[in-house]
Amino acid sequence: MASRTISQQLMRIPPRPLTTFRPGQQQRWMSLEVLNASKHDRERVLILGSGWGGFGVARSLDTKLYQPILVTPRTYFVFTPLLAGTAVGTLEFRTAMESAHNIKGVDVIRGRGENIDFANKQLHIESQDGSLVMDYDKLIIAVGAYAQTFGVPGVKEHAFFLKDVADARRIRDRILERFEEAALPMLTNEKRKELLHFVVVGGGPTGVEFAAELHDLLEDDLKHTYPDLVDLAKITVYDVAPNILAMFDKKLQSYATQLFNRQNIEVATSHHVLEVQHDAIVTKEDGRVPCGAIIWSTGLVPNTFVANTIAKPFETLGAEKKEMKIVKAPRGMIQVDSRLRVLAEPKEGGEAQPLEDVFALGDCASIKDLLLPATAQVANQQAKWLGKALNKSAKRMVEVSEEAEFHFRSLGIMAYLGSWNAVMQKDKLDVKGKLSWLLWRTAYLTKSVSWRNRCLISVYWFLNWFFGRDINRF
Amino acid sequence: MASRTISQQLMRIPPRPLTTFRPGQQQRWMSLEVLNASKHDRERVLILGSGWGGFGVARSLDTKLYQPILVTPRTYFVFTPLLAGTAVGTLEFRTAMESAHNIKGVDVIRGRGENIDFANKQLHIESQDGSLVMDYDKLIIAVGAYAQTFGVPGVKEHAFFLKDVADARRIRDRILERFEEAALPMLTNEKRKELLHFVVVGGGPTGVEFAAELHDLLEDDLKHTYPDLVDLAKITVYDVAPNILAMFDKKLQSYATQLFNRQNIEVATSHHVLEVQHDAIVTKEDGRVPCGAIIWSTGLVPNTFVANTIAKPFETLGAEKKEMKIVKAPRGMIQVDSRLRVLAEPKEGGEAQPLEDVFALGDCASIKDLLLPATAQVANQQAKWLGKALNKSAKRMVEVSEEAEFHFRSLGIMAYLGSWNAVMQKDKLDVKGKLSWLLWRTAYLTKSVSWRNRCLISVYWFLNWFFGRDINRF
Repeated sequence: MASRTISQQLMRIPPRPLTTFRPGQQQRWMSLEVLNASKHDRERVLILGSGWGGFGVARSLDTKLYQPILVTPRTYFVFTPLLAGTAVGTLEFRTAMESAHNIKGVDVIRGRGENIDFANKQLHIESQDGSLVMDYDKLIIAVGAYAQTFGVPGVKEHAFFLKDVADARRIRDRILERFEEAALPMLTNEKRKELLHFVVVGGGPTGVEFAAELHDLLEDDLKHTYPDLVDLAKITVYDVAPNILAMFDKKLQSYATQLFNRQNIEVATSHHVLEVQHDAIVTKEDGRVPCGAIIWSTGLVPNTFVANTIAKPFETLGAEKKEMKIVKAPRGMIQVDSRLRVLAEPKEGGEAQPLEDVFALGDCASIKDLLLPATAQVANQQAKWLGKALNKSAKRMVEVSEEAEFHFRSLGIMAYLGSWNAVMQKDKLDVKGKLSWLLWRTAYLTKSVSWRNRCLISVYWFLNWFFGRDINRF
Repeated sequence: MASRTISQQLMRIPPRPLTTFRPGQQQRWMSLEVLNASKHDRERVLILGSGWGGFGVARSLDTKLYQPILVTPRTYFVFTPLLAGTAVGTLEFRTAMESAHNIKGVDVIRGRGENIDFANKQLHIESQDGSLVMDYDKLIIAVGAYAQTFGVPGVKEHAFFLKDVADARRIRDRILERFEEAALPMLTNEKRKELLHFVVVGGGPTGVEFAAELHDLLEDDLKHTYPDLVDLAKITVYDVAPNILAMFDKKLQSYATQLFNRQNIEVATSHHVLEVQHDAIVTKEDGRVPCGAIIWSTGLVPNTFVANTIAKPFETLGAEKKEMKIVKAPRGMIQVDSRLRVLAEPKEGGEAQPLEDVFALGDCASIKDLLLPATAQVANQQAKWLGKALNKSAKRMVEVSEEAEFHFRSLGIMAYLGSWNAVMQKDKLDVKGKLSWLLWRTAYLTKSVSWRNRCLISVYWFLNWFFGRDINRF
């Protein structure tokens, strides 16, 4: 990777020297002028997105070396492994949230990246109060991805995704609403069964963990509030594949399926969803099945910003203008090299080369010749690597291309299965049952970002175990 | 009050004997048949509303003697003194909520009372899934009241009330949104000042406490997140009266006003609001003043159900049919006697007499010849008195008219003023400052309903003091 990159070829920008700027109090700015003045001789890093990738990089950048600015329509980070729990009240929503405003020395703009001018190194931002153009020295794209719907009609209108805290809140509200509705005395039991049939589409960890958490809510709490109704309730997990939890080995897969069956969660694998209606799901195998809520979690597609960025060719500056375009990875994401640099290729075809100052990571990016799962773990490791690589290269006054490549090191995979059981798999090691559940909880408690949330998570786990989950909806 | 009441005259219903029914497990029902079967020989008490009045009565009724059924569109109780705190994140919303479903032995119907058939002792209920008619032996009306707007245009469309947890959530979201918006770099400081001007209309305890809590949020937390912006922010409390906190004595009123002035909260008394716009308030004195949020808390008016119930005459059963109507108290509420029995009078005029089996309490009721403030304290004492009176009368096999009258015993009044200061007044005793604040917190912590919430309130008070309030919006 010693070959000069496109931007080096065309606009030689020398690496910045180590500056002596030391941010003390949180730096906030009131205008582009103040922002530019407070930049000093640091490089400005624009970070798009506040998920595992963007939030992670923002936290790891050395603000003595860089001026990080986070551009995001959602100014908080979601600790996604706890999201399914918040959707049923095992934890309160805010325990899974961290404010981007709390990262010391990082400025936050609530807005949405609209368009990148790669040649002039500018980002066009669309915000509530109009648009804005901002220069960058380095750009980091970590905008995540949309939920995959496979073009199934009705999904966007009637199903719930589980990607944000706002989704979790809507789901929690819907489930409790269905029980209150089913408790109305004039309904038939037939109608009640329909209202209390909860459908999960997608047998990956998110769908499975949500089904497990929902089962716990029913068994631990709603059984006491609505003893007669809970017997009419049902959870079904649909997947097109022959097994749920495809990334786990066969033994754990069948353990999960058996446990689900014992817990009265129906596992409907090898099922094809044809349509989602506001009160039913239609599959090729079973036809129309009425239900009270559908939670949809079946993978990812590129979001609009990524699709537009890839689709739009751009011209390089310099003597010989060249029309370039971003390389599209399989599944439509942004192709990056092993140092997470975005790859571009001549529009008319030719060899792909990295843009030296534009990076992409997490769900919106795909490393060339390396298939990594679209998980929090991958995005998190990428973010830490990128932050460190940027810090080191700035100190050494070299480009990131001089740093060691990113390597993913799997820490294992886990999924919660309900009733204090989980599965865990690392290399050749399988753990299942209560021990695995304990490891699951310990891992996520210790990996939580803030001490505030670690305290709150412990408190809620204890109080909800002792007193039961809160079943209020408002 | 030994004179026979209307319902006794016309349909003599003997008081029920003490039954031996003992509810063990939470009683829930699936249909009117099951509900009727599980009634045994208890009297059915329909309770309308789940505020201080309705929730309070439901909790105090002896379910061996009565079958209490709570009819409410909002199936939780709000601990209103903490509401202003939840609106700025001093406490999490759910710490101010108690589920009506958790009252042992009380059934809950999520629905709205539409119409009372006093003669046949039936309530018509409107729910999400259609309507329903339910017989009652005793009916308790505790539906609260709407916020008073004095017909000022724009209030309902653009101002926030602070009566429910959902209101508090909307307010919290709006305040934090305004700060994120004001942080956008392309705005002028003039525009920022407009966005960050927060207006409270109404200088009663609710408005004052909200202004105080908002001040704390700005000073304790947002000052660190947005140091430059907080200096542009402003809080104004408008009231038409010459003083805020009219129910306190002059000394405490001027203490509150001085403290507010020191805390940079403008007190605009003797101001008349003419109009509320989506981004401004118009007063007779100052004209149009732009602002980013308006919180409206200026007293109460009867809600639709109460107004309709009073407006509609009804016929009594029996040999000589009489057209009766409910007596309308000053301010349009339901007139009750000193045993909280609803008063009715012949439509053509004549002496008012109590309905033996219909009670009203809290904000929707007004005791004849006794002016009590529309506060939680009054509703709470009424609820406890009514529950006890009903229990005792059932045990003694007499009517409630045989029980001692309700007497209000003031426990004093309190208001939080910001920066750990409060005012408190009981009889001739005034307490102000930090000590008063400590009493304020202790009182509301101990008066909270559930142990779960007492734990959570303590945890949040501590964590938010230590780490700062959560400023995420979702």
